[in-house]
Amino acid sequence: MANEQLDLESLITDIPDYPKPGVVFKDITTLLRDPEGFHEAIDRIANHFADAGVTKVVGAEARGFLIAAPVAYRLNAGFVPARKPGKLPRETRSEEYELEYGFDRLEIHADSTGPGDKVLLVDDLIATGGTAVAQIKMIENSGAELVGMGFLMELAFLHPRELLAEHTDVELFSLIQVD
Amino acid sequence: MANEQLDLESLITDIPDYPKPGVVFKDITTLLRDPEGFHEAIDRIANHFADAGVTKVVGAEARGFLIAAPVAYRLNAGFVPARKPGKLPRETRSEEYELEYGFDRLEIHADSTGPGDKVLLVDDLIATGGTAVAQIKMIENSGAELVGMGFLMELAFLHPRELLAEHTDVELFSLIQVD
Repeated sequence: MANEQLDLESLITDIPDYPKPGVVFKDITTLLRDPEGFHEAIDRIANHFADAGVTKVVGAEARGFLIAAPVAYRLNAGFVPARKPGKLPRETRSEEYELEYGFDRLEIHADSTGPGDKVLLVDDLIATGGTAVAQIKMIENSGAELVGMGFLMELAFLHPRELLAEHTDVELFSLIQVD
Repeated sequence: MANEQLDLESLITDIPDYPKPGVVFKDITTLLRDPEGFHEAIDRIANHFADAGVTKVVGAEARGFLIAAPVAYRLNAGFVPARKPGKLPRETRSEEYELEYGFDRLEIHADSTGPGDKVLLVDDLIATGGTAVAQIKMIENSGAELVGMGFLMELAFLHPRELLAEHTDVELFSLIQVD
């Protein structure tokens, strides 16, 4: 890691009124395509948890894979995908989470984490925290230990830390906070 | 990289009759969750193209992200996602490819690759080669140069090299060939 940190937020592109009027979409693809920005984002998340003994990184499709898989590689950990229903071919655990209107589910393979695993949850974004809570439940139901949560971006104005605090006391680390 | 290579194929799980009778699904999640297997797969693809001057890695959602994003990280390259229609918020290029029944499309952001870029195409799987051809067209239409293609697994019995040879003469490298 360089002594002077890149301004990662400046590499993210605001898309006003996307996907609907009044919403500002945070497009991370302009960070991903930047070799230094992408590399430093992965390094800063991985370095933060370098001493946590991480054995598995869990990340959700699709954008979450882009941050979580390189962090797993960098930490010499295994990677466990959390996917939409029907995408994983073997026995799964499944947890529901709330959307603005309605519910959706995430699944992980039932044997993908278990006792003895120290799991880091990684995603590109934490918004309300609903998908993170669903993944925490699946990780802990498997007998594994959640040891940290790392995010490229935190939509602090949606107060995800308040929801997460109801479910876990492990550290939530984010590189960019959007107020 | 270890002097003695891991048997990566032994880490992939065959799922008979999935998603339909007579098809054997190749489940890569048992390789991904294995720290050594995952790390070595990424290293072997990245090392193979280490001298190609890669500036960008293109990979398709969702499983392709799991191999392509760590390879981009390892090569100090930028990462460019190829996504299903409607997922990217800015102006895109788009190419159609054939499915068993019907067609689908992939998109990349129009400004994500361009003249001067040396692009490595990476995916978990090459089957018929249709999605690879769609991505090659988008890369070359942007003015960028395709310098290689790397895959975790090649379904050689579907003869993807024959289709690819009609579109490019760059090298196709795969770690596991399924006959």
